[in-house]
Amino acid sequence: MIKVGIVGGTGYTGVELLRLLAPHPKVELTVITSRSEAGRPVADLYPNLRGHLEIAFTEPDTAALKQCDLVFSATPNGVAMTTARELVDAGVRIIDLAADFRLADPAVWEKWYGMPHACEELLTEAVYGLPEMNRAEIKSAQVLANPGCYPTAVQLGLLPLLEKGLVALDSLIADCKSGVSGAGRGANVGTLQAESAESFKAYGVPGHRHWPEIRQGVVRMSGQDAVGLTFVPHLVPMIRGIHATLYMRPTGEVGDVQALYEAKYKDEPFVDVLPAGSHPETRTVRGSNSCRIAIHQPEDSDQIVVLSVIDNLVKGASGQAVQNMNIMFGFEEKMGLDQIALMP
Amino acid sequence: MIKVGIVGGTGYTGVELLRLLAPHPKVELTVITSRSEAGRPVADLYPNLRGHLEIAFTEPDTAALKQCDLVFSATPNGVAMTTARELVDAGVRIIDLAADFRLADPAVWEKWYGMPHACEELLTEAVYGLPEMNRAEIKSAQVLANPGCYPTAVQLGLLPLLEKGLVALDSLIADCKSGVSGAGRGANVGTLQAESAESFKAYGVPGHRHWPEIRQGVVRMSGQDAVGLTFVPHLVPMIRGIHATLYMRPTGEVGDVQALYEAKYKDEPFVDVLPAGSHPETRTVRGSNSCRIAIHQPEDSDQIVVLSVIDNLVKGASGQAVQNMNIMFGFEEKMGLDQIALMP
Amino acid sequence: MIKVGIVGGTGYTGVELLRLLAPHPKVELTVITSRSEAGRPVADLYPNLRGHLEIAFTEPDTAALKQCDLVFSATPNGVAMTTARELVDAGVRIIDLAADFRLADPAVWEKWYGMPHACEELLTEAVYGLPEMNRAEIKSAQVLANPGCYPTAVQLGLLPLLEKGLVALDSLIADCKSGVSGAGRGANVGTLQAESAESFKAYGVPGHRHWPEIRQGVVRMSGQDAVGLTFVPHLVPMIRGIHATLYMRPTGEVGDVQALYEAKYKDEPFVDVLPAGSHPETRTVRGSNSCRIAIHQPEDSDQIVVLSVIDNLVKGASGQAVQNMNIMFGFEEKMGLDQIALMP
Amino acid sequence: MIKVGIVGGTGYTGVELLRLLAPHPKVELTVITSRSEAGRPVADLYPNLRGHLEIAFTEPDTAALKQCDLVFSATPNGVAMTTARELVDAGVRIIDLAADFRLADPAVWEKWYGMPHACEELLTEAVYGLPEMNRAEIKSAQVLANPGCYPTAVQLGLLPLLEKGLVALDSLIADCKSGVSGAGRGANVGTLQAESAESFKAYGVPGHRHWPEIRQGVVRMSGQDAVGLTFVPHLVPMIRGIHATLYMRPTGEVGDVQALYEAKYKDEPFVDVLPAGSHPETRTVRGSNSCRIAIHQPEDSDQIVVLSVIDNLVKGASGQAVQNMNIMFGFEEKMGLDQIALMP
Repeated sequence: MIKVGIVGGTGYTGVELLRLLAPHPKVELTVITSRSEAGRPVADLYPNLRGHLEIAFTEPDTAALKQCDLVFSATPNGVAMTTARELVDAGVRIIDLAADFRLADPAVWEKWYGMPHACEELLTEAVYGLPEMNRAEIKSAQVLANPGCYPTAVQLGLLPLLEKGLVALDSLIADCKSGVSGAGRGANVGTLQAESAESFKAYGVPGHRHWPEIRQGVVRMSGQDAVGLTFVPHLVPMIRGIHATLYMRPTGEVGDVQALYEAKYKDEPFVDVLPAGSHPETRTVRGSNSCRIAIHQPEDSDQIVVLSVIDNLVKGASGQAVQNMNIMFGFEEKMGLDQIALMP
Repeated sequence: MIKVGIVGGTGYTGVELLRLLAPHPKVELTVITSRSEAGRPVADLYPNLRGHLEIAFTEPDTAALKQCDLVFSATPNGVAMTTARELVDAGVRIIDLAADFRLADPAVWEKWYGMPHACEELLTEAVYGLPEMNRAEIKSAQVLANPGCYPTAVQLGLLPLLEKGLVALDSLIADCKSGVSGAGRGANVGTLQAESAESFKAYGVPGHRHWPEIRQGVVRMSGQDAVGLTFVPHLVPMIRGIHATLYMRPTGEVGDVQALYEAKYKDEPFVDVLPAGSHPETRTVRGSNSCRIAIHQPEDSDQIVVLSVIDNLVKGASGQAVQNMNIMFGFEEKMGLDQIALMP
Repeated sequence: MIKVGIVGGTGYTGVELLRLLAPHPKVELTVITSRSEAGRPVADLYPNLRGHLEIAFTEPDTAALKQCDLVFSATPNGVAMTTARELVDAGVRIIDLAADFRLADPAVWEKWYGMPHACEELLTEAVYGLPEMNRAEIKSAQVLANPGCYPTAVQLGLLPLLEKGLVALDSLIADCKSGVSGAGRGANVGTLQAESAESFKAYGVPGHRHWPEIRQGVVRMSGQDAVGLTFVPHLVPMIRGIHATLYMRPTGEVGDVQALYEAKYKDEPFVDVLPAGSHPETRTVRGSNSCRIAIHQPEDSDQIVVLSVIDNLVKGASGQAVQNMNIMFGFEEKMGLDQIALMP
Repeated sequence: MIKVGIVGGTGYTGVELLRLLAPHPKVELTVITSRSEAGRPVADLYPNLRGHLEIAFTEPDTAALKQCDLVFSATPNGVAMTTARELVDAGVRIIDLAADFRLADPAVWEKWYGMPHACEELLTEAVYGLPEMNRAEIKSAQVLANPGCYPTAVQLGLLPLLEKGLVALDSLIADCKSGVSGAGRGANVGTLQAESAESFKAYGVPGHRHWPEIRQGVVRMSGQDAVGLTFVPHLVPMIRGIHATLYMRPTGEVGDVQALYEAKYKDEPFVDVLPAGSHPETRTVRGSNSCRIAIHQPEDSDQIVVLSVIDNLVKGASGQAVQNMNIMFGFEEKMGLDQIALMP
């Protein structure tokens, strides 16, 4: 049993963390902070938790957080980096669901997030928490950077081919589609139902913050720095789910790509390579921590097409955070993450 | 005033034709046939037409159709080709909204549609009805093949760069997304709301019938036959709209692509090139015959990204059919097509 | 041709007014004001208007408005009443789409809208603009109060039985359902797609501002003041549409209710009584100014059940405003309002 | 550990049963039959079950079912009544999710379901499985009739006031709204997304099969047979959820209705009475077995308004079936039913 705190739990990743942690057999949730909702029972803001969780939001309180074994930070970008040092010094481990520790290079962080990094020395120690890529380092992480939603779906789809060096690195394309919960719970005209439902659009084509994160992953997987990556995110009129459609051009003979993916992921508890010819649907992972992947090599095409789906709030955020927690504390990796997707 | 008949008007392209033709000042709708709904007032099946259209469905009746100046065929693939000869011989002009006359090569048609072509000699005469590509030929068409929905959005997005020979033909990618009305009004488990809403998926990646139609267009635009085209369609949980995300790799200096598109389409009544940096939303064309296009050249990418949106039932089907009718009969091209998109 | 101005045209009733007025043959739109969007072309905020309307938003400017024959006020509640006097004195006629002039009794207004009425003397003159109830007065209205969306659907459903005195006034029930565009275009957590889609709820059961407006109508229709009215609004996860399910208990023999409704509305251009046994769908009026009504008298029930549907933004707001304008200025009542609903 | 079989598990109640039973600690799922899908792995039809359930559909096989302790029948209406006798004689207990054993009077059954009842003698023994009404009888049920979805939401909302005799029985109104999964997984034009999304309608106003079931419950709760019940179901454009809006007219002083409901349900594991003034949202019970209820007594109204929400596939079908199983076999009533609703 570990003592767990959550900082900033009023957004969608916050409520999703609570849904997963409330029944987790090894977790005692001791504190959840929110400046705006301090004093309010969590189940009042999120009635789905009525009867499952008695805790109330409290004012941010470092002393209370220092009593925890683990703190999840579900705050906006730029907050965790200002408080991490103090918690780490108190021996608390941190899982940051925001972007503060995802990019190893502080110059890249500053360029894309528009502010200097407040805690560069922890950037070096921070571990990027994509278990399928670097489970070993996660075990001992003091500060864990939980990956972004798009980067999770994309990197899991790219990894097997990229680490084998079988595709051209100068022409990678990730055409990605996300449900509206990815935009968060903030009041915002663009994701009002009357605006975003019954429509489809791309956004951020000139530049999106997940681009440098994916690019960093491509560099790590391939060992090469000369990468040409085109990333186009789109907004889908549904609540949950990400679908990445990945285009990679082989540099030569690639062999049996289906078998390559199946072998790579055969022991992974949360990556499911579908039979050849499949088309994964985002609803098959709604509410679950799975990533489902299918591989296609269309005739008369020079591309390998990989389809990768996740629930952006689970494997793309809070579920992966719990998976990382399980790894960090030596719990069974699937503990508390055995939900079957809700379908229909 | 011309006499117009519709064959098979019970599907979504049928009701959309009726919405557009009912108030058209040059059209007298004299007959609409449907085997299954014969005798039923059209406005009974489609209550939105109550008060706008008094006509009832009748049994298929060639004699009545021969009295028309123009017949729209909104039947399933493979039907129009069996009846076109007789109508043409009677001097009736035909606009086929299905695929029967879209592919010039009967062998390709047979391969993709699974049956031999029943009327090859009309294939030669038939005109492919994408006005922005071949308005001149449309004017005198006896048999007009109305383009498919995906091919319309894709070809309008590709045309300016392809006809100038500025991009690599061996590596064209069309990542396309369509609302569920594209699947038609037939009873079908896959597009039940409980199945398709709140989910996103690709389909037909190994092969889709719009691929050869797009490929044929690429060959015509470029004048080259060695084409590598990857086409991945996806199902979006919304009713109307297509969004094509097109990836093209320049072969050299391309100059000002924005200006190229603006110049190409400046006199087109239904193609609207958005200001640089835009992201067109499908809802901005819902119910209208417009195609809206935006061009992007992301940094650190080797691709030109073109975004193209249409309403699949209007510019992607019935609206384009009416546009073609206007051209064929010398009416003002926008006549009856000035609807402003419904937003929100 | 009349000169028309719009005050506060950035919300959904604003863009809907523009969609209807842009092609209206008798309207010259000369000014549209918005403090927040001054200087921005209207078609930039609402891209569906690109190519249809060249005008830009301007700063509020009473001098310019005074040049108009008619001003539509599409501002929040409480604004029109502060500026109406000056415009009226300049001879401008006003159609207010907000609630400022809907309630004849200033005390009731103050109770429900939380502020004293700023222009009580105009309240007396103001005409409530439900044409099916009081077309004659509308013709000469200087200040016209355009009805609320729920009150329109409900009153049209109640009118024939109430004006005949056939049902109990102490036990009227209006169970109403509205799409999310009724909540407006303001940034608001509750109508984010991730919140309101895929859910259904009642709201405002203890009291809603449309209750006194409906009650006032019931009193007028029935000539009785002792009214017991239960009004329960619900939020439907769709963009447009209102469905009112009305329960009325007959006080005695009611005769042929279907015939009563058909007779009442047979000459109304925008009320369509469906055949007995029908269930109107909101989509059959999407984008159109129609109200569709069906009457049921279920077995083993003591109630007459009336179903009434409108598009909340058209007959429930901007379409009805244009209908009122047509009546006020002697134009054909359907002018500019012949749109066929978009279906599917 | 009990051996459990499922007959006809390809519909939505079937997959939902599987989602709940797969991880249930006391259940061994030994057989699931489907004529149409025999031989196909369950997880192939429902990919959300991949990795959670290895079983395949088999041909209907009474011998195999007789080996079970319990059989869930998830077949269409009229099937279970033809096979129940044989299973009961073999000592197998049955939970029927269809309507075959819900109505005690075979004449009423025949009237509403259009066929004579094939097993009248079991009707007498069959227990109606609404635990909050008759938990004691459920314990020993051999044949259990699992309630309909609407009847569950409505009866739980009516029960406390009706069993106290505080409201008029001749004027009960249940205005109910259901998501589209209630229409089942059969191919059907009316619930295609392109038809049912973005629209709202009533249906079955002249008569719906859940009316006699609710009426039977009202008679049982009240002990009175003279009941006037108006039931109007509506179709909501969402996948899961039922919202019942109930109108009851007090016959005299009713006292503290909020306290009455809280007292009635305080020990119920799956009924949650919300604080006074609340508006329950269906999404707060999505995927969970809870029923959430709120009570209102609006001013100037002669009605008590009760709002009751459930997930139609869980508390309205498969979850309630599992709850009944738990009661019948002496398991902890919440076993396998502790899912937290998925929100957003």
